[in-house]
Amino acid sequence: MTEYVRKKGSRESLEVKAGQGTTMQVLISAEEAPNFAFRKFVMEPHGGMPKHTNLIEHEQYVLKGSGIIEIGDEVFEVTAGDAVYIPGNVSHSYQAGKEGLEFICVVPNKEDKIELLE
Amino acid sequence: MTEYVRKKGSRESLEVKAGQGTTMQVLISAEEAPNFAFRKFVMEPHGGMPKHTNLIEHEQYVLKGSGIIEIGDEVFEVTAGDAVYIPGNVSHSYQAGKEGLEFICVVPNKEDKIELLE
Repeated sequence: MTEYVRKKGSRESLEVKAGQGTTMQVLISAEEAPNFAFRKFVMEPHGGMPKHTNLIEHEQYVLKGSGIIEIGDEVFEVTAGDAVYIPGNVSHSYQAGKEGLEFICVVPNKEDKIELLE
Repeated sequence: MTEYVRKKGSRESLEVKAGQGTTMQVLISAEEAPNFAFRKFVMEPHGGMPKHTNLIEHEQYVLKGSGIIEIGDEVFEVTAGDAVYIPGNVSHSYQAGKEGLEFICVVPNKEDKIELLE
């Protein structure tokens, strides 16, 4: 039977190995929905992820905290309520601020490969 | 040039005609991204949407407030931090609580049709 609602905190937090102080909860997985997966990332204060590329795009929404996101050759400071679009194959990195950074990250159910650039 | 970041409040709020006291901001549109669109819904206290179906699925995340969502023949109370998966062709309705209800709603870039059921 389809699970329609995932209550806050009901999904396991997984360590993101390519990051520092970064965990991810899969809220709606590629196995549960036909077209895209819904994940929540939590970065500790001053945590983040180094510059990398993915094959697939990310669509994100900042829930809490603040941080610096570098996308291609542009640098953005993001805070709660901002939306972020990172096309596939465009380099990006995350650096959480002093209160950490939490965001939703939606990705298509397509093959991905992460390539670290630094 | 690709717009990577949409700062909070920078996108127009559009009235959702099928709803009551409900507006939507398109944060990342079907024209801007290849696979899915990212929208934010804001329902006033006691606003909502009547029972309806869509052809396409919804993946949602509650940002603020609370509300009652009926999906198929199940009824859920949702609050900030809950994630909701509504498959295509499954009836659903929203009733915002006394503080209103705000949520992200992601939909695939596929043909949709809304059918009101009441």
